[in-house]
Amino acid sequence: MPVLTKNSPRLRDEERARLIWLLTTDKAVTSTLLGKLTFAEQYDDGTLRDDLAEVGALVAHLPAPDLADTLEALPSEERHALWRMVEDDKRGKVLLEASENVWDDLIDEMSDKALLDALTTLDIDEQIYLVQHLPRNLTGRLMASLPADERARVHQVMNYARNSVGAIMEFGVITLRPDVTLGAVQRYLRRLGKMPANTDKLFVTSRDNTLLGELALQTILLNPALRRVEEVMDAEPVAFHPQESAEKVARTFERDNLLSAAVVDSEGKLMGRLTIDEIVDVVYEETDNDIRQMSGLSNEEDIFAPVTRAVKTRWAWLAVNLCTAFIASRVINGFEHTISQLVALASLMPIVAGIGGNTGNQTITMIVRALALQYIQPGNFSFLILREMGVALINGVVWGGIMGLVTWWLYDDPHLGGVMMLAMVLNLLVASLMGVLIPMIMIKFGRDPAVGSSVMITAITDTGGFFIFLGLATLFLL
Amino acid sequence: MPVLTKNSPRLRDEERARLIWLLTTDKAVTSTLLGKLTFAEQYDDGTLRDDLAEVGALVAHLPAPDLADTLEALPSEERHALWRMVEDDKRGKVLLEASENVWDDLIDEMSDKALLDALTTLDIDEQIYLVQHLPRNLTGRLMASLPADERARVHQVMNYARNSVGAIMEFGVITLRPDVTLGAVQRYLRRLGKMPANTDKLFVTSRDNTLLGELALQTILLNPALRRVEEVMDAEPVAFHPQESAEKVARTFERDNLLSAAVVDSEGKLMGRLTIDEIVDVVYEETDNDIRQMSGLSNEEDIFAPVTRAVKTRWAWLAVNLCTAFIASRVINGFEHTISQLVALASLMPIVAGIGGNTGNQTITMIVRALALQYIQPGNFSFLILREMGVALINGVVWGGIMGLVTWWLYDDPHLGGVMMLAMVLNLLVASLMGVLIPMIMIKFGRDPAVGSSVMITAITDTGGFFIFLGLATLFLL
Repeated sequence: MPVLTKNSPRLRDEERARLIWLLTTDKAVTSTLLGKLTFAEQYDDGTLRDDLAEVGALVAHLPAPDLADTLEALPSEERHALWRMVEDDKRGKVLLEASENVWDDLIDEMSDKALLDALTTLDIDEQIYLVQHLPRNLTGRLMASLPADERARVHQVMNYARNSVGAIMEFGVITLRPDVTLGAVQRYLRRLGKMPANTDKLFVTSRDNTLLGELALQTILLNPALRRVEEVMDAEPVAFHPQESAEKVARTFERDNLLSAAVVDSEGKLMGRLTIDEIVDVVYEETDNDIRQMSGLSNEEDIFAPVTRAVKTRWAWLAVNLCTAFIASRVINGFEHTISQLVALASLMPIVAGIGGNTGNQTITMIVRALALQYIQPGNFSFLILREMGVALINGVVWGGIMGLVTWWLYDDPHLGGVMMLAMVLNLLVASLMGVLIPMIMIKFGRDPAVGSSVMITAITDTGGFFIFLGLATLFLL
Repeated sequence: MPVLTKNSPRLRDEERARLIWLLTTDKAVTSTLLGKLTFAEQYDDGTLRDDLAEVGALVAHLPAPDLADTLEALPSEERHALWRMVEDDKRGKVLLEASENVWDDLIDEMSDKALLDALTTLDIDEQIYLVQHLPRNLTGRLMASLPADERARVHQVMNYARNSVGAIMEFGVITLRPDVTLGAVQRYLRRLGKMPANTDKLFVTSRDNTLLGELALQTILLNPALRRVEEVMDAEPVAFHPQESAEKVARTFERDNLLSAAVVDSEGKLMGRLTIDEIVDVVYEETDNDIRQMSGLSNEEDIFAPVTRAVKTRWAWLAVNLCTAFIASRVINGFEHTISQLVALASLMPIVAGIGGNTGNQTITMIVRALALQYIQPGNFSFLILREMGVALINGVVWGGIMGLVTWWLYDDPHLGGVMMLAMVLNLLVASLMGVLIPMIMIKFGRDPAVGSSVMITAITDTGGFFIFLGLATLFLL
């Protein structure tokens, strides 16, 4: 394999794995780093010294995003140990790249001052983002450290909601006037000496900062130096407002293959820009959150958090689940007389409930995704309900029919078989109807349709399945 | 609101919604487009004529990616109708942007020749991608239409697996020699007159096409025209191999904030490049697939497919689910004597099974995501199992204790309460253990850990829950 240079992703994959291995398998490494071993104890252990040296070399070599990933993949104690090794000037960047689930662990040994110092290596928009969302209130101290003219701008940005464009935009933009030549632009850029990361275009503004157009770097390179900016710029650029939802904007980036885009205020004045690297983070986070929320996991759950914290983040959904299971149990309890007459019902009822849960979960997963992709519109909603119920009807008749025959054969009772089939058809219909309605209703009430949808649909199909099956049995079999 | 230019994403959002509304609410529109209404019938209906004109204007105005999204959000008949309106020279692009779930519908009225003609508007790599994956074999005809020297290169690319770097790379790269000056580079670019889309850097190669470095457009603009390429290029670029997994490469793009990267063969020779827009598509697809697969939905399921097709894509998992439910039912059946003695067990057993399913699903969701993020390494695996079991133990004791007390109070039977609590603790331990083990084992056997993992864990916690609860009841209560 060629191109295994010092920045090779493959090499860094190996280095991250090695670092995790060193910290988790040799307890002495973590203990030493946390200051729990005396110098003599350390000195006696040759392997330990080698391991410590290797950890140091790896931490020094790995770039901040890789360190962030490594920290996320460590249990709390090892995470603290590794964090102590990270140099001060890398810490800000690592914090920024790490997910918020591990922020608690990372900052709990740092003083306010140390934390603010770590942030100074970052751009002002990144500092604001961290200061606003870190689990410690540093906003005042950060503001105090800023020059007066910046403070006003920062204040303006602080109020945007977490998942809005305003919260993830960058301030670092290069602006041009429309009447200069490309040659002048190039001289200006050489004098600047650098551009913000991921700059693929410059923004053309009027004297009062109104966005007039965009000038791609490509355009500068492809056109003669004597052309003026306004002749070659894109005068109808895609621009976003700071209040817009980052997830929705991400879809536009994907659709239009954008690399960056301007953010403008309600008067069309340039405020900053969005870049594709932030958007990729939004996409990963969004889908990650969807998956977690559907199965009733908290967003804040960190996979390597200690037991106590994991218990805390999960108890709410467990409690919800227990309540719904308890209700289902009470439904069955209402039919105890029926069951005592025909104990076979107790064996068969979980089939009806289970198949409903499965179908309901399939339907709800599709609808939640379709909503995220903006595929569901008033016009096609009725088609969707009818389609899902059609699928449920066919599946119910086919599979319910099969289970009905099996039941008939097993218990030698055609009536029991008939009840089985009918109950399956009905519960599948309930499952698909609710699978469409639940997320739609949650959207109507401004809720995230993914949150706990799986727990909810299972509750309905369980309770419904037991009620339908035992109810039909009471009607027809007793 | 300003900046609602003709390309505004908000305007296009509205236009897509309007198009869907026109096609789905006025049946006559679709009928006319599909040629089911006579001219006289059309002519009589003023609204219809207006609607048709509006549909025509919208289709002409919306860019290809928006048309692709609209087509995906329509039932099959309306989809066919809209597709007939799309101009020939836009069709290739729309096919490329549409998800594969709708390809069937789009191409089934097109002849082979019409399809190949539609593809000619695309780059050769895009043509190859479509020809390889469209549900119709056109590879031979496409190859025949290519010049002999391109055919060899195409043959080489055709063999890469669907989710590999090779399948999504682009051939369109601009290469430079290391010894020319930046001024010469700029003259060369002006002569070329254009660059491939999303070009943020050029590639520096030797005479035998070995990749020597990368030259960012920024670097050309920021440095004096007399500097030579080799003095300012990045000589250690991140490069990928065509066999690598696209999903893994996407993580590297995210981690390193890449916009594009070279693809090189095993000898370090430049083959093409990857761009962030393809990577964003990979990310959306990957996470979408994960969500679908966990709940046992087929990848090919198109949310607006007709009922018959939806039945076909879902029957397999329903059958699996029915089998597992049947096994659980047989377990209960083995305890019918116990239940007939104490019919309260029938009401309580779904609680034990349900809480296990909930916990198991939470655990498995976390593990699947952590595996995708490469957080799980040999070193931290045992921590993870112990942690999940610790969480399960605490939750089991707390919630099992509460349910035990409730049971005691409801049925006035302390022994039944004790069995309830013990069964819940044990089933939660089973759920968390299997929630970690199932995805790990699937990885070991080279399977995708997301596929059907939710169905599997539910099967285990149901069967296990019934067995543990009824088994304990038989032991201690009879």
